[in-house]
Amino acid sequence: MLTENASATAEADIRALVENWRQAFLKRDLDTIMDNYTPDVVAFDAILKLQFKGVEAYREHWQACLDMCPGDLEFEIAELGVEAGDGIAFGHYLSRCGGSNDKGEVCASWMRATIALRRVGGRWKIAHEHFSAPFDPVSNKAMFDLVPE
Amino acid sequence: MLTENASATAEADIRALVENWRQAFLKRDLDTIMDNYTPDVVAFDAILKLQFKGVEAYREHWQACLDMCPGDLEFEIAELGVEAGDGIAFGHYLSRCGGSNDKGEVCASWMRATIALRRVGGRWKIAHEHFSAPFDPVSNKAMFDLVPE
Repeated sequence: MLTENASATAEADIRALVENWRQAFLKRDLDTIMDNYTPDVVAFDAILKLQFKGVEAYREHWQACLDMCPGDLEFEIAELGVEAGDGIAFGHYLSRCGGSNDKGEVCASWMRATIALRRVGGRWKIAHEHFSAPFDPVSNKAMFDLVPE
Repeated sequence: MLTENASATAEADIRALVENWRQAFLKRDLDTIMDNYTPDVVAFDAILKLQFKGVEAYREHWQACLDMCPGDLEFEIAELGVEAGDGIAFGHYLSRCGGSNDKGEVCASWMRATIALRRVGGRWKIAHEHFSAPFDPVSNKAMFDLVPE
């Protein structure tokens, strides 16, 4: 187990990574976004496919997602929880994520995010990521009106 | 970091936990299902709410989900990946999850699952779980026809 100090340092490092990632997203800085993932990342994104395996496949999907929202982007994070061990860590948060489409319409909703991290060469990287919106089992539609309680 | 042996043991323990959990689900054994979670579990389930905080809230949701599918249950797991450190671990897999409703109609589809674990009192427990189906950003409907590639 990590000492309390080492655990607090790891947690602070991971919180900084999440904020760095968020700022890169808002700036559409795809190189910086992708630099936070391991080459073998397995990603479960909110839309279109069950999974993306490897950083190249995930980067292509990221590019397509950014292209869907050519206007201003939004990414607010709430209730970030982080737990770090020696070499492996995880985090989870709620995110209000959105952007404007080519008609200038803003689409944003609260969703959920999980990250699982591995420490590689002295630096934490995201080895697994999971974004999603819950769906309504009657309409089968994604629920975009939910807010953190 | 864990030694290679310790890491292999932890990974085997977590794979056993997942199989134990799966068998309990198939038998509708809610006590055994819930015994795999920490009291402070934060769960992002596939349906209805952004999150469930604490094992009691999650148990109520589990009961409601089991009640939705009174017939035979199905839960197949594919591509389970596990990484364990000293005290913290994570896993991710694809699951073909389903059941029969009160009309005997079978509803099953491939979805995604992430688990994040903490070692407590010599035993791994799930401290965070995330289930979801991806949605189609045009129809906003959950995509139930996807299969592992």
